[in-house]
Amino acid sequence: MRISKLLGERLKDAPANATSKSHIFLSRAGYIKQVANGIYTFMPPAERVSKKIQDIICEEMDAVGGQEVLFPVVMPRELWDLSGRYSSIGQELVRFKDRSEHDLVLGMTHEEAAVHAALGTIKSYEQLPFMIYQIQTKFRDEARARAGLIRVREFLMKDAYSFHASQEDLETYYKTLYDAYFKIFHRMGLKNVIAVHSDSGMMGGKVADEFQLLTDIGEDTIVICPECDSASNIDVATSEIPENDHIFGVKQEVFTGEAKTIDEVCSNLNKQPWQVAKAVCYAVIGDENRIVIAFLRGDREVNEAKLKNLVGGEIAIKDLQDSGLVKGNIGCVNLDIPNAEIYYDRSLDGLESFVTGANKEGYHYQGVSITRDVKPEKFVDISKVAEGDRCPVCGAKLLVKNGIEIGNIFQLGTRYTQKMGMSVHMPDGSSINPIMGCYGIGIGRCLASIAEENCDEKGLVWPMSVAPWHIYLCPIRLDDPAVKEKAEWLYKKLTAENFEVLYDDRETSAGVKFTDSELMGIPVRIVISPKTIENGQVEITIRQTGEKLFVKEESLSKKLDEIIVY
Amino acid sequence: MRISKLLGERLKDAPANATSKSHIFLSRAGYIKQVANGIYTFMPPAERVSKKIQDIICEEMDAVGGQEVLFPVVMPRELWDLSGRYSSIGQELVRFKDRSEHDLVLGMTHEEAAVHAALGTIKSYEQLPFMIYQIQTKFRDEARARAGLIRVREFLMKDAYSFHASQEDLETYYKTLYDAYFKIFHRMGLKNVIAVHSDSGMMGGKVADEFQLLTDIGEDTIVICPECDSASNIDVATSEIPENDHIFGVKQEVFTGEAKTIDEVCSNLNKQPWQVAKAVCYAVIGDENRIVIAFLRGDREVNEAKLKNLVGGEIAIKDLQDSGLVKGNIGCVNLDIPNAEIYYDRSLDGLESFVTGANKEGYHYQGVSITRDVKPEKFVDISKVAEGDRCPVCGAKLLVKNGIEIGNIFQLGTRYTQKMGMSVHMPDGSSINPIMGCYGIGIGRCLASIAEENCDEKGLVWPMSVAPWHIYLCPIRLDDPAVKEKAEWLYKKLTAENFEVLYDDRETSAGVKFTDSELMGIPVRIVISPKTIENGQVEITIRQTGEKLFVKEESLSKKLDEIIVY
Repeated sequence: MRISKLLGERLKDAPANATSKSHIFLSRAGYIKQVANGIYTFMPPAERVSKKIQDIICEEMDAVGGQEVLFPVVMPRELWDLSGRYSSIGQELVRFKDRSEHDLVLGMTHEEAAVHAALGTIKSYEQLPFMIYQIQTKFRDEARARAGLIRVREFLMKDAYSFHASQEDLETYYKTLYDAYFKIFHRMGLKNVIAVHSDSGMMGGKVADEFQLLTDIGEDTIVICPECDSASNIDVATSEIPENDHIFGVKQEVFTGEAKTIDEVCSNLNKQPWQVAKAVCYAVIGDENRIVIAFLRGDREVNEAKLKNLVGGEIAIKDLQDSGLVKGNIGCVNLDIPNAEIYYDRSLDGLESFVTGANKEGYHYQGVSITRDVKPEKFVDISKVAEGDRCPVCGAKLLVKNGIEIGNIFQLGTRYTQKMGMSVHMPDGSSINPIMGCYGIGIGRCLASIAEENCDEKGLVWPMSVAPWHIYLCPIRLDDPAVKEKAEWLYKKLTAENFEVLYDDRETSAGVKFTDSELMGIPVRIVISPKTIENGQVEITIRQTGEKLFVKEESLSKKLDEIIVY
Repeated sequence: MRISKLLGERLKDAPANATSKSHIFLSRAGYIKQVANGIYTFMPPAERVSKKIQDIICEEMDAVGGQEVLFPVVMPRELWDLSGRYSSIGQELVRFKDRSEHDLVLGMTHEEAAVHAALGTIKSYEQLPFMIYQIQTKFRDEARARAGLIRVREFLMKDAYSFHASQEDLETYYKTLYDAYFKIFHRMGLKNVIAVHSDSGMMGGKVADEFQLLTDIGEDTIVICPECDSASNIDVATSEIPENDHIFGVKQEVFTGEAKTIDEVCSNLNKQPWQVAKAVCYAVIGDENRIVIAFLRGDREVNEAKLKNLVGGEIAIKDLQDSGLVKGNIGCVNLDIPNAEIYYDRSLDGLESFVTGANKEGYHYQGVSITRDVKPEKFVDISKVAEGDRCPVCGAKLLVKNGIEIGNIFQLGTRYTQKMGMSVHMPDGSSINPIMGCYGIGIGRCLASIAEENCDEKGLVWPMSVAPWHIYLCPIRLDDPAVKEKAEWLYKKLTAENFEVLYDDRETSAGVKFTDSELMGIPVRIVISPKTIENGQVEITIRQTGEKLFVKEESLSKKLDEIIVY
């Protein structure tokens, strides 16, 4: 490829809203161009990286017996009604009508389409297990697209679906995919990837793992044990709660005036946050009769994912003063709100002398005992793990990190096959609904994650396996006919030898060319100049290490074969 | 691939609505499964064919300097407002709103996105010409999806866009693409493909060619000259009109009673259809004040594409009796309808003694002279070419055939670059809007067209270059351990040697296996049986010719290398 004809521009400045390194460099180096909020065009270099990522994924999916298919982007409502997702998913799901007023959706994932494809064609246990996968465009109307390709609305995704005759068989295959995923990420050149236990979210199902690239710009929060290597998304992470000290106090009402927040109340009564039981109130979306009140120790935060699972519906934080609650003075003693569902976090278990609101403007109780004065039926886990909490497996102090979710795998169970009426005959003559797994990888998010992890202050540093081109052919002084002739000859020769060459055929300064080659992150730069020609050599610079080599022209191809390995 | 695990089923019956051979066989052989009207899932065999088609296209696009990109499926209204297509395209364009009430569209083609990608990054004539292309999902809300993959609503399309500094440069490159297209279709194994001049439709622009596969089930009508090889879509085809005989008659009003149609009037007055001038009336869609009346010789049909271009808007046939027209008695003598736009087809030129309606219930005129009694300002070409008309180039008798449009190329001109404000500096310091070409190929339609052209009464007959697998390994009597062992060994051996093998590992009859292998259209069948093992041979059957060979086991791979060439 001649850079003079390459679509896309190398820019000094990144878009104003770009903060992550991948967003900055992919924009500045001409890889991506924004078309609308969360919608991008892949310019030629990005498309080349994307195709290499796709090839790696397809090879590894084929290696574990995957059959590639292609499901439609646009699907009829009827299919999504069968699974119940037409109504259970919120605004992320795009719904529209066709010219005949039929309801259609844009696919976010393809569980329904996968079961539809198998329905009627898979009839016997003998046809199980099998796995089908596709690479297809998805659209999710995200409320907050951000960070370039990290969180977008339209994206290419590899999604795979496996069907099994037993849970045991699913678990075996799930482990195979788990291993294949690490192989895929390793081949792409991603290093800091870990698997973490996760919530199965809108997919349904029970067991789920996410593959997270650990990076400060990640928007997911992950809890990691440095001792036993267990890791979970904070949405499902648990920890050992340090035992409370069981010292009883005398319950008494105290005037706290304007003190409303935990900090204000603590300061007013000279207490620590862990000596307070705080309340957080929620409305249940779509059901105005329900009110949810969560009590937890003042030093803990509510984990809304956990609470949502207990409530069984979407929730939103809300001042519920209409319901008789006194904002800033809500407490768990003698709280009498009809139709309120009250949850007590396990951080309150054994807390015997604490402060809580008196449900009366300007007053709190202190010396409250959870067993004597509140008597909850049970304690539940609705709080976020915090750095320094103890690992529930080995007791070590937990770390909290940020990550980008680049893939996920789910044990779906029979949710979709059951709802869509797919069954197979078993050897004993009975029928069962096949048990499903599903497995996703976002292509664009992988691309951005690789960029995020492989860059320096000058720009991108692509791993060899996914680099858009391997070689940046960089002649200096193209106005010199000898350089021009040599460069053209070398470009043709290397291309004919199947090297992937980006040829900087512009008559511009060495400085501009070096800056562009570094910004674009091409692994190997070959410089030709009047001087190298005089010496019968070329100069090679390795982007990743900065290492420089001088290589005789006649041994160049051999040297490149040694360097370009992946 | 083991057929026992292959997703998809071989069926005895095609869907009730399937009439074309490709629809019937692709459905029966488990290649496609309908999800909704005009929306299909590609099952594994079809996805394999599709990827081979895509590879051929990408190779040939790269060979003519194409840079692959990926534009989004979902685009903002603003982009389509710039080109004017947001409002000029009808219901085929899907429009919807996102969660923030922004208007979005599903891309049908990507001219706007291509200019958007180039805008600001291409600034000088030195960066021209260049060509970018993508393979991306498109959605068009077709009113009449039909014939399986031939006319669908969702489809994969390769669309390419080139940008030039001069019309001459565009024309040179257009010819390059024209040749590349023939190469692509040839490599896919399509034989009866011709290029025909066409209407540029919603793309705009002047010169356009379609690549048509000639087949009876095609829904396009093509006019071909067997002598000089010129060919046109009937929408733009012209012919030499045989001269009328210029014999004058005496104009007189005659009572024709209930005779309304051409046949009835001819029978009543003992005339031939070519001796009648008939009227066809249209409403202009979106403008109720306009009425269009087309007069043409009774033996000709209106070509609505031509008429639409003259009218400058969408038209629909209509009884316009409210306007004072007498249905069945409309004539071109003394027709006085305010705001009617009247067009006279050139088939009326020189017609001097003909019949036409008297604009009065139950009466016609006969002996009418076009020059004496009607005196049109001009004649236009608004009639369809008919088989037997004369070629306007060489005078030979024209043929009328049906075709499937599998690709098209357009000289777009500056329509999009001008409207979207893209300009480049020229050597003389001036600025111009680059001149564009665009070039499309439908992947699924190619797949169906190949199937349509390559099948027999037993099923599909894939060309080697796009066959989903090259070899159907067909052991007979798998209950015989020797056969089983040999089959498993051969499957592993051939797969390890990179042959693409579909292995029929089912314990079923030879009849079922042969039928399935023929239905699926795999080019080479290898049969192993107790008898072939005894002889140290395998039996090879070539799907296309039915030819049978017996090959020694040790020379099998060599023989397959000879057979599997493309």
